[in-house]
Amino acid sequence: MALGLIATITVQEGKNAEFEQIFLSLTEQVRANEPGNIIYALHRSKADRQIYKVLEQYDSAEALDAHGKADYFRDANKVLAALVAGPPEIEILDAV
Amino acid sequence: MALGLIATITVQEGKNAEFEQIFLSLTEQVRANEPGNIIYALHRSKADRQIYKVLEQYDSAEALDAHGKADYFRDANKVLAALVAGPPEIEILDAV
Repeated sequence: MALGLIATITVQEGKNAEFEQIFLSLTEQVRANEPGNIIYALHRSKADRQIYKVLEQYDSAEALDAHGKADYFRDANKVLAALVAGPPEIEILDAV
Repeated sequence: MALGLIATITVQEGKNAEFEQIFLSLTEQVRANEPGNIIYALHRSKADRQIYKVLEQYDSAEALDAHGKADYFRDANKVLAALVAGPPEIEILDAV
């Protein structure tokens, strides 16, 4: 079964541009390397400009698992860790 | 600028199957009739099985506006109104 995911990320004040640049580069790598990924789209809250939401969908639990283990994903998260205000909130959903 | 949207819908107990069938038919119509729609994907919460989240993205504010005014969308919402526990929560986001 396909899975959806909403990741809510809070970025530190003044780090938005750097965060977006790194995350968009990660997005390209996800789209280029993960056939099981269907949706991977970064969005920025209108209510709080430090909050971002990534809308994601994977064709299987295995595809989501592979995403989390990808080197480029782990490398990007090491860099992003210095730009965010805490760990992301992750909500996993069943695609209908 | 492209817009993201998360619609959170609470369905009445016992109405899930009917809700899903109508919403999936609406999804086909959206994909067939709205070139400005990029993402339109129904998901079901794992935490509360009566809660659904629709992950959406439009290439412009005009495309989102057209979606809201489409006959099939208005017709589907008339039917869905009898199946949901209240109006949807809508969060509109800026795509990055």
